[in-house]
Amino acid sequence: FLDIKPIATDNYVAFTFFVGTMAMMAAAVFFFMETSSTAPQWRTSVLVSGLITFIAAVHYYYMRGYNLDTGDSPTFFRYVDWLLTVPLMCVEFYLITKKVGAKVGLLWKLIFASVVMLVTGYIGEAIHPEETVSWVWGFVSGLAYFYIVYLVWFGDVAKLASAASPAVNSAVKTLGWFVLVGWAIYPLGYILGTKGGLFGMELVTDRAAAKAAMDIVYNIGDAINKIGFGLVIYALSRSEK
Amino acid sequence: FLDIKPIATDNYVAFTFFVGTMAMMAAAVFFFMETSSTAPQWRTSVLVSGLITFIAAVHYYYMRGYNLDTGDSPTFFRYVDWLLTVPLMCVEFYLITKKVGAKVGLLWKLIFASVVMLVTGYIGEAIHPEETVSWVWGFVSGLAYFYIVYLVWFGDVAKLASAASPAVNSAVKTLGWFVLVGWAIYPLGYILGTKGGLFGMELVTDRAAAKAAMDIVYNIGDAINKIGFGLVIYALSRSEK
Ligand SMILES: CC1=C(/C=C/C(C)=C/C=C/C(C)=C/C=O)C(C)(C)CCC1
Ligand SMILES: CC1=C(/C=C/C(C)=C/C=C/C(C)=C/C=O)C(C)(C)CCC1
Repeated sequence: FLDIKPIATDNYVAFTFFVGTMAMMAAAVFFFMETSSTAPQWRTSVLVSGLITFIAAVHYYYMRGYNLDTGDSPTFFRYVDWLLTVPLMCVEFYLITKKVGAKVGLLWKLIFASVVMLVTGYIGEAIHPEETVSWVWGFVSGLAYFYIVYLVWFGDVAKLASAASPAVNSAVKTLGWFVLVGWAIYPLGYILGTKGGLFGMELVTDRAAAKAAMDIVYNIGDAINKIGFGLVIYALSRSEK
Repeated sequence: FLDIKPIATDNYVAFTFFVGTMAMMAAAVFFFMETSSTAPQWRTSVLVSGLITFIAAVHYYYMRGYNLDTGDSPTFFRYVDWLLTVPLMCVEFYLITKKVGAKVGLLWKLIFASVVMLVTGYIGEAIHPEETVSWVWGFVSGLAYFYIVYLVWFGDVAKLASAASPAVNSAVKTLGWFVLVGWAIYPLGYILGTKGGLFGMELVTDRAAAKAAMDIVYNIGDAINKIGFGLVIYALSRSEK
Protein backbone atom coordinates (compact mmCIF):
# COMPACT_ATOMS: atom_id res chain seq x y z
CA PHE A 1 0.00 0.00 0.00
CA LEU A 2 2.66 2.48 1.00
CA ASP A 3 4.81 3.03 -2.00
CA ILE A 4 7.81 2.17 0.09
CA LYS A 5 10.38 4.81 -0.61
CA PRO A 6 12.79 5.22 2.24
CA ILE A 7 11.75 8.01 4.57
CA ALA A 8 14.61 9.96 6.17
CA THR A 9 14.49 9.66 9.94
CA ASP A 10 14.89 13.42 10.18
CA ASN A 11 11.93 14.03 7.89
CA TYR A 12 9.89 15.72 10.62
CA VAL A 13 7.22 16.82 8.17
CA ALA A 14 6.55 13.22 7.16
CA PHE A 15 6.71 12.12 10.80
CA THR A 16 3.99 14.56 11.82
CA PHE A 17 1.86 13.55 8.84
CA PHE A 18 2.05 9.93 9.96
CA VAL A 19 1.25 10.72 13.58
CA GLY A 20 -1.51 13.12 12.55
CA THR A 21 -3.22 10.67 10.23
CA MET A 22 -3.41 7.96 12.84
CA ALA A 23 -4.33 10.32 15.67
CA MET A 24 -7.31 11.64 13.68
CA MET A 25 -8.49 8.17 12.71
CA ALA A 26 -8.20 6.89 16.28
CA ALA A 27 -10.11 9.92 17.59
CA ALA A 28 -12.86 9.32 15.01
CA VAL A 29 -13.22 5.69 16.04
CA PHE A 30 -13.33 6.78 19.68
CA PHE A 31 -16.08 9.34 19.17
CA PHE A 32 -18.13 7.05 16.89
CA MET A 33 -17.95 4.21 19.37
CA GLU A 34 -18.83 6.39 22.34
CA THR A 35 -22.06 7.75 20.77
CA SER A 36 -24.07 4.72 21.82
CA SER A 37 -23.29 5.36 25.49
CA THR A 38 -23.76 9.12 25.24
CA ALA A 39 -26.81 10.84 26.70
CA PRO A 40 -29.40 11.42 23.93
CA GLN A 41 -29.13 15.21 24.13
CA TRP A 42 -25.41 15.13 23.30
CA ARG A 43 -25.34 12.18 20.95
CA THR A 44 -25.35 14.17 17.72
CA SER A 45 -22.63 16.49 19.05
CA VAL A 46 -20.28 13.59 19.77
CA LEU A 47 -21.15 12.12 16.36
CA VAL A 48 -20.17 15.41 14.70
CA SER A 49 -16.84 15.32 16.60
CA GLY A 50 -16.38 11.92 15.03
CA LEU A 51 -17.17 13.29 11.59
CA ILE A 52 -14.70 16.17 12.00
CA THR A 53 -11.85 13.85 12.95
CA PHE A 54 -12.84 11.23 10.36
CA ILE A 55 -12.85 13.81 7.57
CA ALA A 56 -9.46 15.04 8.81
CA ALA A 57 -8.10 11.48 8.91
CA VAL A 58 -8.94 10.92 5.24
CA HIS A 59 -7.40 14.21 4.18
CA TYR A 60 -4.31 13.60 6.30
CA TYR A 61 -3.94 10.30 4.49
CA TYR A 62 -3.97 12.16 1.16
CA MET A 63 -1.63 14.89 2.40
CA ARG A 64 0.82 12.38 3.82
CA GLY A 65 1.07 10.62 0.47
CA TYR A 66 1.17 13.86 -1.50
CA ASN A 67 3.95 15.27 0.67
CA LEU A 68 5.98 12.04 0.46
CA ASP A 69 5.65 11.90 -3.32
CA THR A 70 6.19 15.54 -4.21
CA GLY A 71 7.91 17.07 -1.16
CA ASP A 72 5.34 19.83 -1.51
CA SER A 73 3.16 21.54 1.09
CA PRO A 74 -0.34 20.15 0.47
CA THR A 75 -2.20 23.47 0.63
CA PHE A 76 -4.91 22.31 -1.77
CA PHE A 77 -5.88 19.43 0.54
CA ARG A 78 -5.68 21.50 3.71
CA TYR A 79 -8.31 23.86 2.35
CA VAL A 80 -10.50 21.00 1.10
CA ASP A 81 -10.37 19.73 4.67
CA TRP A 82 -10.97 23.08 6.37
CA LEU A 83 -13.92 23.86 4.09
CA LEU A 84 -15.68 20.86 5.61
CA THR A 85 -14.35 20.70 9.16
CA VAL A 86 -14.56 24.37 10.15
CA PRO A 87 -18.28 24.67 9.26
CA LEU A 88 -18.81 21.45 11.22
CA MET A 89 -17.19 23.09 14.25
CA CYS A 90 -19.70 25.92 13.78
CA VAL A 91 -22.41 23.24 13.88
CA GLU A 92 -20.96 22.12 17.24
CA PHE A 93 -21.34 25.61 18.72
CA TYR A 94 -24.92 25.69 17.46
CA LEU A 95 -25.82 22.23 18.77
CA ILE A 96 -24.60 22.85 22.31
CA THR A 97 -26.41 26.19 22.60
CA LYS A 98 -29.57 24.93 20.89
CA LYS A 99 -31.15 23.97 24.18
CA VAL A 100 -30.94 27.55 25.44
CA GLY A 101 -32.41 29.01 22.30
CA ALA A 102 -29.76 29.15 19.58
CA LYS A 103 -31.52 29.81 16.31
CA VAL A 104 -30.58 28.41 12.91
CA GLY A 105 -29.75 32.00 11.94
CA LEU A 106 -26.74 31.85 14.26
CA LEU A 107 -25.56 28.67 12.58
CA TRP A 108 -25.78 30.32 9.15
CA LYS A 109 -23.86 33.37 10.43
CA LEU A 110 -21.05 31.19 11.73
CA ILE A 111 -20.93 29.02 8.60
CA PHE A 112 -21.06 32.02 6.26
CA ALA A 113 -18.21 33.74 8.13
CA SER A 114 -16.08 30.60 8.06
CA VAL A 115 -16.66 30.05 4.34
CA VAL A 116 -15.69 33.68 3.60
CA MET A 117 -12.62 33.26 5.81
CA LEU A 118 -11.52 30.12 4.00
CA VAL A 119 -12.32 31.14 0.41
CA THR A 120 -10.50 34.48 0.71
CA GLY A 121 -7.65 32.72 2.50
CA TYR A 122 -7.40 30.20 -0.34
CA ILE A 123 -7.33 32.88 -2.99
CA GLY A 124 -4.56 34.67 -1.15
CA GLU A 125 -2.56 31.59 -0.27
CA ALA A 126 -3.05 29.33 -3.26
CA ILE A 127 -4.02 31.51 -6.19
CA HIS A 128 -1.99 34.67 -5.66
CA PRO A 129 0.69 33.63 -3.16
CA GLU A 130 3.52 35.33 -4.99
CA GLU A 131 1.81 38.66 -5.33
CA THR A 132 1.75 41.30 -2.65
CA VAL A 133 -2.04 41.47 -3.14
CA SER A 134 -2.21 38.24 -1.16
CA TRP A 135 -2.17 40.31 2.01
CA VAL A 136 -5.46 41.92 1.03
CA TRP A 137 -7.16 38.53 0.76
CA GLY A 138 -5.56 37.51 4.04
CA PHE A 139 -6.82 40.70 5.66
CA VAL A 140 -10.43 40.08 4.57
CA SER A 141 -10.06 36.52 5.78
CA GLY A 142 -8.83 37.87 9.10
CA LEU A 143 -11.91 40.08 9.41
CA ALA A 144 -14.13 37.05 8.98
CA TYR A 145 -12.02 35.13 11.50
CA PHE A 146 -12.34 37.87 14.12
CA TYR A 147 -16.08 38.01 13.54
CA ILE A 148 -16.24 34.33 14.53
CA VAL A 149 -14.05 35.04 17.56
CA TYR A 150 -16.42 37.88 18.49
CA LEU A 151 -19.54 35.70 18.16
CA VAL A 152 -18.02 33.03 20.39
CA TRP A 153 -16.48 35.34 23.00
CA PHE A 154 -18.98 38.22 23.21
CA GLY A 155 -21.75 37.73 20.69
CA ASP A 156 -24.68 35.32 20.32
CA VAL A 157 -22.78 32.18 21.29
CA ALA A 158 -21.39 33.69 24.47
CA LYS A 159 -24.73 35.21 25.48
CA LEU A 160 -26.61 31.95 24.99
CA ALA A 161 -23.92 30.02 26.85
CA SER A 162 -24.12 32.32 29.86
CA ALA A 163 -27.82 31.46 30.13
CA ALA A 164 -27.13 27.75 29.90
CA SER A 165 -25.91 25.22 32.47
CA PRO A 166 -22.45 25.78 34.03
CA ALA A 167 -21.18 22.80 32.07
CA VAL A 168 -22.26 24.24 28.71
CA ASN A 169 -20.99 27.70 29.64
CA SER A 170 -17.64 26.28 30.64
CA ALA A 171 -17.40 24.22 27.43
CA VAL A 172 -18.13 27.25 25.25
CA LYS A 173 -15.46 29.26 27.11
CA THR A 174 -12.92 26.50 26.55
CA LEU A 175 -13.88 26.21 22.90
CA GLY A 176 -13.52 30.00 22.72
CA TRP A 177 -9.86 29.60 23.66
CA PHE A 178 -9.47 27.02 20.93
CA VAL A 179 -10.85 29.49 18.38
CA LEU A 180 -8.76 32.40 19.64
CA VAL A 181 -5.44 30.67 20.32
CA GLY A 182 -5.67 27.26 18.66
CA TRP A 183 -6.92 28.59 15.34
CA ALA A 184 -4.47 31.50 15.39
CA ILE A 185 -1.75 29.18 14.07
CA TYR A 186 -3.40 29.15 10.65
CA PRO A 187 -3.25 32.85 9.89
CA LEU A 188 0.23 32.83 11.46
CA GLY A 189 1.27 30.15 8.99
CA TYR A 190 -0.29 32.20 6.21
CA ILE A 191 1.69 35.27 7.25
CA LEU A 192 4.97 33.38 7.44
CA GLY A 193 4.47 31.18 4.43
CA THR A 194 2.98 33.60 1.92
CA LYS A 195 4.99 36.32 0.21
CA GLY A 196 3.64 39.65 1.38
CA GLY A 197 1.65 37.78 4.02
CA LEU A 198 1.74 40.60 6.55
CA PHE A 199 0.55 43.83 4.97
CA GLY A 200 2.80 43.32 1.99
CA MET A 201 5.95 42.55 3.96
CA GLU A 202 8.00 39.46 3.35
CA LEU A 203 8.88 38.16 6.80
CA VAL A 204 10.85 35.06 5.90
CA THR A 205 13.54 34.57 3.27
CA ASP A 206 14.05 30.80 3.27
CA ARG A 207 10.69 29.83 1.78
CA ALA A 208 11.34 26.10 1.71
CA ALA A 209 12.25 25.99 5.40
CA ALA A 210 9.25 28.20 6.16
CA LYS A 211 6.89 25.83 4.37
CA ALA A 212 8.32 22.81 6.18
CA ALA A 213 7.95 24.58 9.52
CA MET A 214 4.40 25.57 8.53
CA ASP A 215 3.48 21.96 7.79
CA ILE A 216 4.85 20.73 11.09
CA VAL A 217 3.05 23.46 13.02
CA TYR A 218 -0.19 22.82 11.11
CA ASN A 219 0.00 19.06 11.64
CA ILE A 220 0.52 19.37 15.37
CA GLY A 221 -1.93 22.25 15.73
CA ASP A 222 -4.60 20.51 13.67
CA ALA A 223 -4.47 17.44 15.88
CA ILE A 224 -4.78 19.57 19.02
CA ASN A 225 -7.53 21.72 17.49
CA LYS A 226 -9.68 18.96 16.05
CA ILE A 227 -9.16 16.23 18.62
CA GLY A 228 -9.10 18.69 21.51
CA PHE A 229 -12.30 20.36 20.28
CA GLY A 230 -13.97 16.98 20.10
CA LEU A 231 -12.77 16.04 23.57
CA VAL A 232 -14.27 19.22 25.06
CA ILE A 233 -17.62 18.27 23.49
CA TYR A 234 -17.13 14.74 24.78
CA ALA A 235 -16.36 15.91 28.32
CA LEU A 236 -19.50 18.08 28.22
CA SER A 237 -21.55 15.08 27.15
CA ARG A 238 -20.26 13.12 30.15
CA SER A 239 -20.82 15.86 32.73
CA GLU A 240 -23.80 15.72 35.08
CA LYS A 241 -26.72 17.29 33.12
CA PHE B 1 -5.13 4.86 -3.88
CA LEU B 2 -4.41 8.41 -4.98
CA ASP B 3 -2.12 8.41 -7.95
CA ILE B 4 -0.27 11.41 -6.67
CA LYS B 5 0.10 13.73 -9.60
CA PRO B 6 0.46 17.32 -8.51
CA ILE B 7 -2.89 19.09 -8.58
CA ALA B 8 -2.85 22.75 -9.59
CA THR B 9 -4.13 24.90 -6.74
CA ASP B 10 -6.41 26.72 -9.19
CA ASN B 11 -7.97 23.48 -10.40
CA TYR B 12 -11.38 24.34 -9.02
CA VAL B 13 -13.02 21.37 -10.71
CA ALA B 14 -10.73 18.99 -8.84
CA PHE B 15 -11.19 21.00 -5.65
CA THR B 16 -14.98 20.61 -5.78
CA PHE B 17 -14.65 16.89 -6.54
CA PHE B 18 -12.52 16.45 -3.42
CA VAL B 19 -14.86 18.48 -1.22
CA GLY B 20 -17.89 16.75 -2.72
CA THR B 21 -16.56 13.22 -2.20
CA MET B 22 -15.77 13.79 1.46
CA ALA B 23 -18.97 15.77 2.12
CA MET B 24 -21.10 12.93 0.75
CA MET B 25 -19.21 10.29 2.72
CA ALA B 26 -19.43 12.30 5.95
CA ALA B 27 -23.16 12.85 5.39
CA ALA B 28 -23.67 9.11 4.81
CA VAL B 29 -21.84 8.23 8.02
CA PHE B 30 -23.95 10.84 9.83
CA PHE B 31 -27.28 9.48 8.60
CA PHE B 32 -26.31 5.83 9.12
CA MET B 33 -25.15 6.53 12.67
CA GLU B 34 -28.25 8.54 13.55
CA THR B 35 -30.71 5.81 12.54
CA SER B 36 -30.34 4.02 15.86
CA SER B 37 -31.58 7.08 17.76
CA THR B 38 -34.30 7.93 15.22
CA ALA B 39 -37.98 7.34 16.01
CA PRO B 40 -39.12 4.01 14.49
CA GLN B 41 -41.52 5.62 12.02
CA TRP B 42 -38.74 7.64 10.39
CA ARG B 43 -35.87 5.23 10.71
CA THR B 44 -36.09 3.86 7.17
CA SER B 45 -36.31 7.38 5.73
CA VAL B 46 -33.09 8.46 7.46
CA LEU B 47 -31.48 5.21 6.33
CA VAL B 48 -32.43 5.98 2.71
CA SER B 49 -30.85 9.43 3.12
CA GLY B 50 -27.71 7.58 4.15
CA LEU B 51 -27.95 5.37 1.08
CA ILE B 52 -28.39 8.32 -1.28
CA THR B 53 -25.32 10.11 0.09
CA PHE B 54 -23.31 6.88 0.32
CA ILE B 55 -24.01 6.02 -3.32
CA ALA B 56 -23.06 9.58 -4.25
CA ALA B 57 -19.83 9.33 -2.22
CA VAL B 58 -18.72 6.26 -4.16
CA HIS B 59 -19.50 7.82 -7.52
CA TYR B 60 -17.82 11.06 -6.55
CA TYR B 61 -14.75 9.01 -5.73
CA TYR B 62 -14.86 7.55 -9.26
CA MET B 63 -15.55 10.91 -10.91
CA ARG B 64 -12.79 12.60 -8.95
CA GLY B 65 -10.23 10.08 -10.20
CA TYR B 66 -11.62 10.06 -13.73
CA ASN B 67 -11.49 13.85 -13.94
CA LEU B 68 -7.97 14.01 -12.51
CA ASP B 69 -6.71 11.37 -14.96
CA THR B 70 -8.48 12.50 -18.15
CA GLY B 71 -9.43 16.12 -17.53
CA ASP B 72 -12.86 15.10 -18.85
CA SER B 73 -16.34 15.78 -17.56
CA PRO B 74 -17.50 12.43 -16.07
CA THR B 75 -20.99 12.38 -17.60
CA PHE B 76 -21.13 8.57 -17.69
CA PHE B 77 -20.66 8.35 -13.91
CA ARG B 78 -23.07 11.20 -13.16
CA TYR B 79 -25.89 9.34 -14.88
CA VAL B 80 -24.95 6.05 -13.22
CA ASP B 81 -25.31 7.93 -9.95
CA TRP B 82 -28.54 9.76 -10.81
CA LEU B 83 -30.20 6.57 -12.04
CA LEU B 84 -29.91 5.22 -8.50
CA THR B 85 -30.19 8.30 -6.33
CA VAL B 86 -33.11 10.06 -8.01
CA PRO B 87 -35.45 7.03 -7.73
CA LEU B 88 -34.34 6.77 -4.10
CA MET B 89 -35.46 10.36 -3.57
CA CYS B 90 -38.82 9.32 -5.02
CA VAL B 91 -38.87 6.58 -2.40
CA GLU B 92 -38.35 9.28 0.25
CA PHE B 93 -41.46 11.18 -0.93
CA TYR B 94 -43.43 7.94 -0.79
CA LEU B 95 -42.17 6.94 2.67
CA ILE B 96 -43.04 10.21 4.34
CA THR B 97 -46.56 10.33 2.86
CA LYS B 98 -47.19 6.63 3.43
CA LYS B 99 -48.75 7.25 6.82
CA VAL B 100 -51.44 9.42 5.27
CA GLY B 101 -52.31 6.96 2.55
CA ALA B 102 -49.68 7.13 -0.19
CA LYS B 103 -50.13 4.08 -2.37
CA VAL B 104 -47.37 2.11 -4.06
CA GLY B 105 -48.84 3.34 -7.34
CA LEU B 106 -47.59 6.83 -6.53
CA LEU B 107 -44.10 5.46 -5.94
CA TRP B 108 -44.16 3.76 -9.36
CA LYS B 109 -45.35 6.96 -11.04
CA LEU B 110 -42.49 8.95 -9.52
CA ILE B 111 -39.87 6.32 -10.30
CA PHE B 112 -41.11 5.83 -13.87
CA ALA B 113 -41.03 9.57 -14.53
CA SER B 114 -37.52 9.91 -13.12
CA VAL B 115 -36.21 6.99 -15.18
CA VAL B 116 -37.71 8.45 -18.38
CA MET B 117 -36.20 11.83 -17.45
CA LEU B 118 -32.74 10.35 -16.94
CA VAL B 119 -32.68 7.93 -19.87
CA THR B 120 -33.82 10.53 -22.40
CA GLY B 121 -31.41 13.05 -20.84
CA TYR B 122 -28.57 10.57 -21.20
CA ILE B 123 -29.34 9.88 -24.84
CA GLY B 124 -29.37 13.60 -25.54
CA GLU B 125 -26.30 14.43 -23.48
CA ALA B 126 -24.06 11.42 -23.94
CA ILE B 127 -25.12 9.70 -27.13
CA HIS B 128 -26.06 12.56 -29.44
CA PRO B 129 -24.51 15.64 -27.79
CA GLU B 130 -23.13 17.04 -31.01
CA GLU B 131 -26.36 16.82 -32.96
CA THR B 132 -29.08 19.39 -32.78
CA VAL B 133 -31.51 16.51 -32.17
CA SER B 134 -30.17 16.47 -28.60
CA TRP B 135 -32.66 19.19 -27.79
CA VAL B 136 -35.55 16.87 -28.56
CA TRP B 137 -34.31 14.31 -26.06
CA GLY B 138 -33.76 17.10 -23.56
CA PHE B 139 -37.28 18.34 -24.16
CA VAL B 140 -38.86 14.95 -23.47
CA SER B 141 -36.67 14.70 -20.38
CA GLY B 142 -37.95 18.11 -19.33
CA LEU B 143 -41.56 16.95 -19.69
CA ALA B 144 -40.85 14.05 -17.32
CA TYR B 145 -39.08 16.43 -14.92
CA PHE B 146 -42.05 18.81 -14.84
CA TYR B 147 -44.39 15.91 -14.23
CA ILE B 148 -42.40 15.13 -11.08
CA VAL B 149 -42.52 18.79 -10.09
CA TYR B 150 -46.31 18.73 -10.64
CA LEU B 151 -46.80 15.60 -8.50
CA VAL B 152 -44.80 17.11 -5.64
CA TRP B 153 -46.26 20.64 -5.82
CA PHE B 154 -49.90 20.06 -6.83
CA GLY B 155 -50.51 16.36 -7.43
CA ASP B 156 -50.69 13.28 -5.25
CA VAL B 157 -47.69 14.08 -3.07
CA ALA B 158 -48.90 17.59 -2.26
CA LYS B 159 -52.47 16.45 -1.59
CA LEU B 160 -51.36 13.69 0.78
CA ALA B 161 -48.96 16.05 2.55
CA SER B 162 -51.70 18.62 3.17
CA ALA B 163 -53.65 15.93 5.02
CA ALA B 164 -50.64 14.97 7.11
CA SER B 165 -49.08 16.55 10.18
CA PRO B 166 -47.74 20.12 9.86
CA ALA B 167 -44.20 18.74 10.13
CA VAL B 168 -44.69 16.38 7.17
CA ASN B 169 -46.49 19.05 5.14
CA SER B 170 -43.68 21.51 5.79
CA ALA B 171 -41.02 18.95 4.86
CA VAL B 172 -42.76 18.12 1.57
CA LYS B 173 -43.00 21.83 0.74
CA THR B 174 -39.29 22.28 1.43
CA LEU B 175 -38.43 19.20 -0.63
CA GLY B 176 -40.66 20.65 -3.35
CA TRP B 177 -38.34 23.65 -3.51
CA PHE B 178 -35.38 21.31 -3.81
CA VAL B 179 -37.02 19.61 -6.79
CA LEU B 180 -38.03 22.87 -8.46
CA VAL B 181 -34.95 25.01 -7.81
CA GLY B 182 -32.25 22.64 -6.63
CA TRP B 183 -32.77 20.13 -9.44
CA ALA B 184 -33.09 22.87 -12.06
CA ILE B 185 -29.31 23.12 -12.21
CA TYR B 186 -29.14 19.82 -14.06
CA PRO B 187 -31.22 20.75 -17.10
CA LEU B 188 -29.48 24.16 -16.97
CA GLY B 189 -26.15 22.40 -17.20
CA TYR B 190 -27.52 20.31 -20.05
CA ILE B 191 -28.63 23.43 -21.91
CA LEU B 192 -25.28 25.15 -21.46
CA GLY B 193 -23.05 22.16 -21.95
CA THR B 194 -24.71 20.41 -24.86
CA LYS B 195 -24.58 21.70 -28.42
CA GLY B 196 -28.10 22.65 -29.41
CA GLY B 197 -29.11 22.18 -25.78
CA LEU B 198 -31.84 24.81 -25.90
CA PHE B 199 -34.22 24.14 -28.77
CA GLY B 200 -31.33 23.68 -31.17
CA MET B 201 -29.46 26.83 -30.22
CA GLU B 202 -25.82 26.81 -29.18
CA LEU B 203 -25.62 29.11 -26.19
CA VAL B 204 -21.94 28.86 -25.34
CA THR B 205 -18.91 28.95 -27.62
CA ASP B 206 -16.06 27.99 -25.26
CA ARG B 207 -17.12 24.38 -24.71
CA ALA B 208 -14.16 23.48 -22.48
CA ALA B 209 -14.80 26.37 -20.11
CA ALA B 210 -18.53 25.56 -20.17
CA LYS B 211 -17.88 21.97 -19.18
CA ALA B 212 -15.57 23.01 -16.36
CA ALA B 213 -18.18 25.47 -15.08
CA MET B 214 -20.83 22.76 -15.41
CA ASP B 215 -18.79 20.34 -13.31
CA ILE B 216 -18.24 22.92 -10.58
CA VAL B 217 -21.95 23.84 -10.55
CA TYR B 218 -22.97 20.17 -10.54
CA ASN B 219 -20.53 19.31 -7.74
CA ILE B 220 -21.74 22.11 -5.50
CA GLY B 221 -25.38 21.65 -6.44
CA ASP B 222 -25.26 17.89 -5.94
CA ALA B 223 -23.90 18.29 -2.44
CA ILE B 224 -26.65 20.79 -1.56
CA ASN B 225 -29.33 18.69 -3.24
CA LYS B 226 -28.42 15.32 -1.78
CA ILE B 227 -27.16 16.34 1.64
CA GLY B 228 -29.80 19.06 1.99
CA PHE B 229 -32.57 16.65 0.98
CA GLY B 230 -31.33 14.20 3.58
CA LEU B 231 -31.13 16.89 6.25
CA VAL B 232 -34.78 17.88 5.61
CA ILE B 233 -35.79 14.27 6.14
CA TYR B 234 -33.55 14.17 9.23
CA ALA B 235 -35.08 17.34 10.66
CA LEU B 236 -38.54 15.87 10.08
CA SER B 237 -37.50 12.73 11.93
CA ARG B 238 -36.43 14.82 14.92
CA SER B 239 -39.55 16.99 15.05
CA GLU B 240 -42.26 16.26 17.60
CA LYS B 241 -44.56 13.63 16.03
C1 LIG C 1 -7.68 34.15 9.48
C2 LIG C 1 -7.00 33.59 8.27
C3 LIG C 1 -7.03 32.26 7.98
C4 LIG C 1 -7.68 31.40 8.98
C5 LIG C 1 -7.82 30.09 8.97
C6 LIG C 1 -8.40 29.30 10.02
C7 LIG C 1 -8.92 29.93 11.30
C8 LIG C 1 -8.45 27.97 9.83
C9 LIG C 1 -8.95 27.05 10.78
C10 LIG C 1 -8.80 25.72 10.57
C11 LIG C 1 -9.22 24.71 11.47
C12 LIG C 1 -9.91 25.06 12.72
C13 LIG C 1 -8.92 23.45 11.05
C14 LIG C 1 -9.20 22.23 11.75
O1 LIG C 1 -9.24 22.25 12.98
C15 LIG C 1 -6.46 31.71 6.68
C16 LIG C 1 -7.52 30.98 5.89
C17 LIG C 1 -5.27 30.79 6.95
C18 LIG C 1 -5.94 32.82 5.74
C19 LIG C 1 -5.38 33.99 6.40
C20 LIG C 1 -6.30 34.60 7.42
C1 LIG D 1 -34.82 17.90 -16.95
C2 LIG D 1 -33.58 17.39 -17.61
C3 LIG D 1 -32.63 16.71 -16.92
C4 LIG D 1 -32.84 16.61 -15.47
C5 LIG D 1 -32.07 16.01 -14.57
C6 LIG D 1 -32.30 16.00 -13.16
C7 LIG D 1 -33.49 16.71 -12.55
C8 LIG D 1 -31.40 15.38 -12.41
C9 LIG D 1 -31.45 15.30 -10.99
C10 LIG D 1 -30.41 14.81 -10.33
C11 LIG D 1 -30.32 14.74 -8.90
C12 LIG D 1 -31.44 15.19 -8.06
C13 LIG D 1 -29.16 14.23 -8.45
C14 LIG D 1 -28.76 14.06 -7.06
O1 LIG D 1 -29.24 14.79 -6.23
C15 LIG D 1 -31.42 16.12 -17.62
C16 LIG D 1 -31.36 14.64 -17.38
C17 LIG D 1 -30.13 16.80 -17.16
C18 LIG D 1 -31.48 16.26 -19.15
C19 LIG D 1 -32.12 17.49 -19.63
C20 LIG D 1 -33.48 17.70 -19.06
